[in-house]
Amino acid sequence: MNKKTIRIGLDIGGTKIAAVATNSQQQPLAQAVYPTNSATPNVFIHGVANAISDILCQAEAHTADIAAIGVGIPGQVNQQTGHIHQAVNLNLDNFPLRTALQQQYDCSVRIENDVAAAAIGAYHHLQQTTPTLHHIAYIGIGTGLAAGLILNGRLYRGANGMAGEIGHVMVEPGGALCNCGARGCLETIVAGPAIARQAAEFLPVPIAADDVYTAAQKNVQQAVTLVQRVTAFLAQAIQWLMMAYDVEKVVLGGGVANVGALFLDPILQTFARLRHQSPLAQAMLPNDKITLLPSGYNPGLWGAVHLAEQAVFIP
Amino acid sequence: MNKKTIRIGLDIGGTKIAAVATNSQQQPLAQAVYPTNSATPNVFIHGVANAISDILCQAEAHTADIAAIGVGIPGQVNQQTGHIHQAVNLNLDNFPLRTALQQQYDCSVRIENDVAAAAIGAYHHLQQTTPTLHHIAYIGIGTGLAAGLILNGRLYRGANGMAGEIGHVMVEPGGALCNCGARGCLETIVAGPAIARQAAEFLPVPIAADDVYTAAQKNVQQAVTLVQRVTAFLAQAIQWLMMAYDVEKVVLGGGVANVGALFLDPILQTFARLRHQSPLAQAMLPNDKITLLPSGYNPGLWGAVHLAEQAVFIP
Repeated sequence: MNKKTIRIGLDIGGTKIAAVATNSQQQPLAQAVYPTNSATPNVFIHGVANAISDILCQAEAHTADIAAIGVGIPGQVNQQTGHIHQAVNLNLDNFPLRTALQQQYDCSVRIENDVAAAAIGAYHHLQQTTPTLHHIAYIGIGTGLAAGLILNGRLYRGANGMAGEIGHVMVEPGGALCNCGARGCLETIVAGPAIARQAAEFLPVPIAADDVYTAAQKNVQQAVTLVQRVTAFLAQAIQWLMMAYDVEKVVLGGGVANVGALFLDPILQTFARLRHQSPLAQAMLPNDKITLLPSGYNPGLWGAVHLAEQAVFIP
Repeated sequence: MNKKTIRIGLDIGGTKIAAVATNSQQQPLAQAVYPTNSATPNVFIHGVANAISDILCQAEAHTADIAAIGVGIPGQVNQQTGHIHQAVNLNLDNFPLRTALQQQYDCSVRIENDVAAAAIGAYHHLQQTTPTLHHIAYIGIGTGLAAGLILNGRLYRGANGMAGEIGHVMVEPGGALCNCGARGCLETIVAGPAIARQAAEFLPVPIAADDVYTAAQKNVQQAVTLVQRVTAFLAQAIQWLMMAYDVEKVVLGGGVANVGALFLDPILQTFARLRHQSPLAQAMLPNDKITLLPSGYNPGLWGAVHLAEQAVFIP
């Protein structure tokens, strides 16, 4: 093994850390998932180090072999300082993650918000078949809802690194209370916990978002109504992004999107109805514009590998 | 007068053409408004030429003095070919405007969609007091509704030059029929003709959008309700743009915005309520983020001058 060829990609979430070690061709040498422990910042960074050590070991490589580390993390990333802000699920605020990793591993480190990293991963996946693609929106629908944007072939972060925080657009005045303190945010309707919470209003036992989709397929009327409601709000969000950004593709990912066709088909049907009404919609909202990623492809993890790759060449 | 120093800016609308001739310092030498005649493409281009001739004459300059022409026009602009597409209000489609002007005036010509040109004008106006500004959204609310975006200090056009076409997001399922063929587009609620149409439902005589705002100020109940409705939909559109793009400023312009404080204040009140609910809204939606331009400043016209200026240096 040559020195300094290994790329480490980390997709850090509130409950688990997905990790991959690749060679310089970005071919995976080892891939695994570890639990996240965020009791304290010290415990957290120790867990990240353990994940890196283990994946290196599985790849039969050493710390000195690491060329770069790319990280996607659910928080605000200050690109100047490399500090993580407001990572509430990780119990981190103003945490110097980049410096910590650089010092421990003596390599380049690039960190982005997890949804931004997933947008990069989704973009690179789509580019393999469509190299001319330059504008995509990735919408992650999981615990929350947010978008990552690739515009003119580059990650678009916005003025404060908050571009794509559409989960907190107020779409239902007087609606359910959101974690952010406001009522009726998009995230109170379209997100895993939100779908489960709405289902709990008509079900005696708690079920998960994917069970709601399965129940709707079996024509359980209240589930059908809930899926229609979720679909209507999500389709409007997609339309906002398409019209605002004029992107070539909208990629849906995250836990809820992983439900697959049961999740996607009602959205596509909504756009088919719009196209039927309007020539403008026909031009701007073609059917192949909205897509899921292949099941098993983790865009956040592969986005992190691409961040590592960038960091090798532009440290 | 030195040769080739004059910049011509044209803000072409469905009913009138605003024109300005400036010196190389972008100081206005002459400024005037001409009627648009769009009976045929030939008649249209003849009218544009007349406007240029007259403004040159007023500036005591000649055709040979023109360094560049910048144009904002309500249609889709193909930047490769310089052709105008789907300029329905001007009766033009696939019209070679850039070539026509280049050949007639032997100078550089730069053309953008009218809302994009206005975004450029608004951006340059704000930059005079805030040079660090790099991300703005301009929303033009007039005959229709659309946004122009400056991201990272540059005009963002999107994949097909359609970025910001938010007037056709479907916000009210089963709502009023839009020109585009769909129902419930944002433009059927928030735009000059839309406000007048909705007022006509409760008034015996037709009134314009600005009269609705005046009536609301006088506590005419139905006008108050209509202004509330328009404000709610517009505030949501603004929130989508703020959250999606993470811009530093949202500038409201166009005929309806020119109503001024009566138009702006209810929008600011809506955001004040959101801030009161949520720390995230406090951070992302501060009160000074949403602004009008000074009355009398035509962002489309001055955006066109900046297009001319760009064309001088990058023909």
